[in-house]
Amino acid sequence: MTNEKQRNLTMLCDFYELTMGNGYLAAGMDERVTYFDLFFRSVPDGGGFAIAAGLEQIIDYVQDLHFDPEDIDYLRGRGIFSEDFLRYLENFRFTGDIWAVPEGTPVFPREPLLTVRAPAIQAQLLETYMLCAINHQSLIATKANRIVRAAQGRKVLEFGSRRAQGADAAIVGARAAYIGGCAGTACAISDQIYGVPAGGTMAHAWVQMFDTELDAFRAYCKTYPDSATLLVDTYNTLQSGVPNAIRAFDEILRPLGIEKCGIRLDSGDLAYLSRRARQMLDEAGWPQCTITCSNALDEYLIRDLISQGACIDCFGVGERLITAKSDPVFGGVYKLTAVEGTDGTITPKIKISENVGKITNPHFKKVWRLYARDTGKALADYLTVYDETVDDSGTMEIFDPEATWKRKEVYDFRAQELLQPIFRGGELVYEKPSLEQIKTYCAAQVGTLWDEVLRFENPHRYYVDLSKKLWDIKNGLLHDRK
Amino acid sequence: MTNEKQRNLTMLCDFYELTMGNGYLAAGMDERVTYFDLFFRSVPDGGGFAIAAGLEQIIDYVQDLHFDPEDIDYLRGRGIFSEDFLRYLENFRFTGDIWAVPEGTPVFPREPLLTVRAPAIQAQLLETYMLCAINHQSLIATKANRIVRAAQGRKVLEFGSRRAQGADAAIVGARAAYIGGCAGTACAISDQIYGVPAGGTMAHAWVQMFDTELDAFRAYCKTYPDSATLLVDTYNTLQSGVPNAIRAFDEILRPLGIEKCGIRLDSGDLAYLSRRARQMLDEAGWPQCTITCSNALDEYLIRDLISQGACIDCFGVGERLITAKSDPVFGGVYKLTAVEGTDGTITPKIKISENVGKITNPHFKKVWRLYARDTGKALADYLTVYDETVDDSGTMEIFDPEATWKRKEVYDFRAQELLQPIFRGGELVYEKPSLEQIKTYCAAQVGTLWDEVLRFENPHRYYVDLSKKLWDIKNGLLHDRK
Repeated sequence: MTNEKQRNLTMLCDFYELTMGNGYLAAGMDERVTYFDLFFRSVPDGGGFAIAAGLEQIIDYVQDLHFDPEDIDYLRGRGIFSEDFLRYLENFRFTGDIWAVPEGTPVFPREPLLTVRAPAIQAQLLETYMLCAINHQSLIATKANRIVRAAQGRKVLEFGSRRAQGADAAIVGARAAYIGGCAGTACAISDQIYGVPAGGTMAHAWVQMFDTELDAFRAYCKTYPDSATLLVDTYNTLQSGVPNAIRAFDEILRPLGIEKCGIRLDSGDLAYLSRRARQMLDEAGWPQCTITCSNALDEYLIRDLISQGACIDCFGVGERLITAKSDPVFGGVYKLTAVEGTDGTITPKIKISENVGKITNPHFKKVWRLYARDTGKALADYLTVYDETVDDSGTMEIFDPEATWKRKEVYDFRAQELLQPIFRGGELVYEKPSLEQIKTYCAAQVGTLWDEVLRFENPHRYYVDLSKKLWDIKNGLLHDRK
Repeated sequence: MTNEKQRNLTMLCDFYELTMGNGYLAAGMDERVTYFDLFFRSVPDGGGFAIAAGLEQIIDYVQDLHFDPEDIDYLRGRGIFSEDFLRYLENFRFTGDIWAVPEGTPVFPREPLLTVRAPAIQAQLLETYMLCAINHQSLIATKANRIVRAAQGRKVLEFGSRRAQGADAAIVGARAAYIGGCAGTACAISDQIYGVPAGGTMAHAWVQMFDTELDAFRAYCKTYPDSATLLVDTYNTLQSGVPNAIRAFDEILRPLGIEKCGIRLDSGDLAYLSRRARQMLDEAGWPQCTITCSNALDEYLIRDLISQGACIDCFGVGERLITAKSDPVFGGVYKLTAVEGTDGTITPKIKISENVGKITNPHFKKVWRLYARDTGKALADYLTVYDETVDDSGTMEIFDPEATWKRKEVYDFRAQELLQPIFRGGELVYEKPSLEQIKTYCAAQVGTLWDEVLRFENPHRYYVDLSKKLWDIKNGLLHDRK
């Protein structure tokens, strides 16, 4: 059971994909083969890199692409589509090629995360859902990775379903957060569908339902002796919550020989309360009792809490992760980069803009990541035209595409192509990794980045350079624009 | 066809709803009737009010609540739930009562938007999805309403699907934006499912696909003579885009006698470009040609553009609306307010907090809105215990619940109950309004608010007062806490 398979999301498209499709057919351009790149222009929160995510949902979507009879009826009812086009949609399926970077890969502005080669109508129709999926999951995976790095090895759990922007934002958001490094989620369905480990113990209502806080804690420990995490801030954390938790542990768990237990703080000054609670628990003979904290946390608050010596074993992070509150938009775009003639010649296309950063990198491209052979660290990404290869047996000069006098020799490096074939001629040719594999791969790849790129603020700008050939083509198009 | 009916979202719950449920059953408290309020504590963006939305999706969800055999299998596999509880879930359905404010109602902090009366396990299980639905849609409806008010009667269209936080955020987000006042959406499936009018014309790729911009515009006008809106900023708005649009209109539309057409600007300085484009269109004899603008707009930018005399007929608003970028979390919470004994007596419950604003309003309550009979304006909201009524035939003294010396006499007023019965004994007793009715109701209700409450920044704080009886109960609980 996967979530997306229960729904046909083909109609989740901007209406203009359909008006353009109908227009391409009318203009006899429906079979014109086009190339589109999906890329983004800036990293959220001013960070040094993003984490690509959302490919698995795109694969499910592309495989399921079809228009149901009621979709055709709806479109016919709009009164602007030709019967030819509606017939075309009745038999619609994706027949093109897609390349993409694997989920969990650190990615950088202006490089393709995904490239589509397909007839114009098809390539266009994919735009909205693919952007929605990659923008959303990359946003959350990137944010989660920041928060997890701030926690410096302490566990981070995703707790945000109730504040998520709709059901998918909760369900798939928990998946993305797990890819980015979270240890689990509160969202039960994300565990069931995707295998994101879900857990959770009690709300304040549990405590309020009993005559006393101690009764509530006793009842919980009796039902869940092996996993008793008690919420201690319903009345007064230090005067009532922690002492009652200790008493319940003493009464119920101690006789069973159980040392594993926990408390959760959800309000107040978490630095102070966690230190005092730690002391009380240790003094009472519960050194194994973990302290989980929640309450509008993010990477900045977690960094502050740790620097103040807070005794926190686990952070529950809700609304600020699941909405990426501090910067909730991942600005991925999808742009035409080339068209293919009937003879197979590929003509590069460019989108001009007054704003230099908005000018696209034209053509059907490859993306290479250059790793130092000695340290394993990522040195630069390198975009080439599709028919180029990178010889990583010797040295190579790369240059900044905007300040071309900035040149750098790379040597003793290994070049790896990032874009993997996903669909060929409409058939899936990619073996989908498991969620655990994606998570492990993500952590390993983030490990190849220099600390300077990992910095939260003002990180070093990682090089994304163009080959001489690609740079010449781009420059030629800029001078030759109409 | 409604979106939510295709999926069973029963398992979209925080895991602790299930651990608590199992615990209530173990403690013999599963049939204990509880009362929960769903409310929020502050208005996003520092606004004066929010727009309630999301009830229709909650109704669909509650009606469909059930655990499938694979859900039970998954839960059994977790190894912590009793067979009694799993059997209970097999036969689970909602048997309680729900009251809620109608969608589109302006609402204020600390008053219930929704009240549940149900056995503890049931009331608890609803928490996550109900919060997710109301938090998300109220967030977007509220943001849309701000943007629409900034546009001062000009059309606002929702264009954000590609930047939405997942599929539901796009699909249901467009619905919420429509309730808040948007005139339509770009999202085709939101039209199909919910009847939010969807439209759209072309992307930059359309223009790039043709040999020249003029060819692209001609082809579009030929295919869509009655709805030709041309995107004019692919190469150069004033030197190429607008002149080519005029030429295509002259060649294709003029001979057909069509005067209705449009252009869209998606980059550059929209104030300057729209004024110049307006002038060029007028001089060329196309005064009916509308100008639509898009590009990271929100209420603040729209206000600025209008104050600078921009000639814009329609705003396309994307990422900043569909994610509520400036404040993307609607902080609704769900708190226990009372428990009912087997003899029917209702015992109020309170959640204490060091932070006064976080102390809940206890008890099973009614919410009244007091309108001035002469102006029709909303004067105050007034919370009472469930068994109170408001006599609106004479005068009434109301007082600020935090500064009780602030007293105010209201007279010549009409009191209306906001919470409507939605479910009684598990049966739907509410006639769901159409989306158009909700949108119309919303606009009318926003019209009952004073300008001071509508202000974007530092609005007047609308009164949400407690009856003397409710205030006494709350105060008694605060003094009598354990």
